[in-house]
Amino acid sequence: MQIGIYGYGNLARGVEDAIRRNPDMALAAVFTRRDPAALRLHTPGVPVVAAAQVGDWVGKIDVMIVCGGSATDLPVMTPMLAAQFNVVDSYDNHSRIPAHYAAVDQAAAAAGTTALISCGWDPGLFSLARLYGSVALPEGSDYTFWGRGVSQGHSDAIRRIPGVLDARQYTVPVPGAVARVRQGETPALTTRDKHTRECYVVAAEGADREEIRRQIVTMPAYFADYDTTVTFITAEEMQHSHAGLPHGGSVIRSGVTGQNGEHRQVVEYQLRLDSNPEFTGSVLVAFARAVGRLAARGVHGCKTVLDIAPADLSLTPRDELIAHML
Amino acid sequence: MQIGIYGYGNLARGVEDAIRRNPDMALAAVFTRRDPAALRLHTPGVPVVAAAQVGDWVGKIDVMIVCGGSATDLPVMTPMLAAQFNVVDSYDNHSRIPAHYAAVDQAAAAAGTTALISCGWDPGLFSLARLYGSVALPEGSDYTFWGRGVSQGHSDAIRRIPGVLDARQYTVPVPGAVARVRQGETPALTTRDKHTRECYVVAAEGADREEIRRQIVTMPAYFADYDTTVTFITAEEMQHSHAGLPHGGSVIRSGVTGQNGEHRQVVEYQLRLDSNPEFTGSVLVAFARAVGRLAARGVHGCKTVLDIAPADLSLTPRDELIAHML
Repeated sequence: MQIGIYGYGNLARGVEDAIRRNPDMALAAVFTRRDPAALRLHTPGVPVVAAAQVGDWVGKIDVMIVCGGSATDLPVMTPMLAAQFNVVDSYDNHSRIPAHYAAVDQAAAAAGTTALISCGWDPGLFSLARLYGSVALPEGSDYTFWGRGVSQGHSDAIRRIPGVLDARQYTVPVPGAVARVRQGETPALTTRDKHTRECYVVAAEGADREEIRRQIVTMPAYFADYDTTVTFITAEEMQHSHAGLPHGGSVIRSGVTGQNGEHRQVVEYQLRLDSNPEFTGSVLVAFARAVGRLAARGVHGCKTVLDIAPADLSLTPRDELIAHML
Repeated sequence: MQIGIYGYGNLARGVEDAIRRNPDMALAAVFTRRDPAALRLHTPGVPVVAAAQVGDWVGKIDVMIVCGGSATDLPVMTPMLAAQFNVVDSYDNHSRIPAHYAAVDQAAAAAGTTALISCGWDPGLFSLARLYGSVALPEGSDYTFWGRGVSQGHSDAIRRIPGVLDARQYTVPVPGAVARVRQGETPALTTRDKHTRECYVVAAEGADREEIRRQIVTMPAYFADYDTTVTFITAEEMQHSHAGLPHGGSVIRSGVTGQNGEHRQVVEYQLRLDSNPEFTGSVLVAFARAVGRLAARGVHGCKTVLDIAPADLSLTPRDELIAHML
């Protein structure tokens, strides 16, 4: 299966790495809006092509994995590319997924291509955990905890504060809240009850640290609703202790069964990731396989992870899955 | 959706209970090989029908959930019923699944019905966890731990020893092994390294307890390959402390990503169940919904949980799933 990568940041490098670990996949080309000559791929011999030339590759790429940001890139890129290619993206702005879905579905249906949006781990594998949990335990409550892990969006928000040279924000689940839910309690938890936010900040010399701290902890939407700690560190410490992009979290479904709801049943899906973009990239590649198969069967339009039969994700033939994995 | 239950033991009562929690489902009838007049259902007003009369119900039942044992019941019942009804079963003899699949597929394909075998949590939700784990992390190792929970098969095996009045066997994962795998190690683990077996036994008065213990711990396949503890208790203690059927376990996929495999990624799917048969029954009902939908679309033959698109399991319309669960 010939895979194209559109965009070449952290996530794209994760996709590139994952393609190498899937023997039925090959990286056909990487498309970039930057100067193609400036990119150095991990995979030798693969062409780097200017984004404007992507139309020349119609017919040479089975599935295009679109690696852009959800804020401004993907809402434009994915429908545009779905008009020419089968596509997979990782659109993760939960509240705007229906609008993105509609735009991509329209483009794919008109072009007779197959698209899959909002893939990765949340949305993605966590969405699947929520769905399987809710159908297995219809009388129950869902809890999603994120972290401990780096939030790129929150880190960027801190970096925009005057006097901040660099920042890293960790989202941290509140251990007591997780423990209560794991034990089968179904507490009503506010935003503040579920997660704390740890910020590591490199400040410019002479910057007003108290003012930076105040601006962080009062920032609406990002920090105001959380217990937030701010720790000032040196640039060396940032480089040494906070260079990675770990993440993870848990989806917990806690429900009851029995004539009077007397039996407590808890389902938990948990990720502990050293590298968020590499794991996300690996999930995108697995779903690209399914998209290629749907396209080959003539199933067109926009899909999500909830529409994909699990066996379509695997390179292993179905009879072997039934014999050895079921 | 009109559901039939064929057989009426612990699992069937779990199915009956779950039907009540799914508002699109109704229990049409229960079929039994026992005297129908002797059964008392949890659901008032539902007919109890002799198994021999099941043919009279063709056309009145959308999906039949077959609640029999895997050793001798299901290999006969599921193909027989698939010749007349859409069916779901919980066949769990892993090594014989391909043969069972072939028999059910032949019957369902010939009759134009839809069947789904080996549903529940293992095989079932754990199979799905193994599949999603393996495709997300193609370079990695799988570990399945069961328990702490009651194994009915092992309890029954102990009960067949002369001098044993009652027995309950708990399968217990070795905490150190689970901890190593959770931390991202990929140790080679023998059967003995992964689980221990705890047996609680009520012995007849005057029985030779040392001989019972010896027969248990040396029993091939069931206990000989494990560290097994045997505790003799009174019938009252058995009734008081071991009446439930708790179970659970974990599927852990531990893999690496990155150019040199330098990033460790761990995915864990975990169940903590107060009632194994009620949870299993609830999963069977969710998959019965999908079977009914496949049948309505004219998709026939034998399926497994690996073939079912997750959205087909849910009562929630697809656009709402995309808006709120993805």
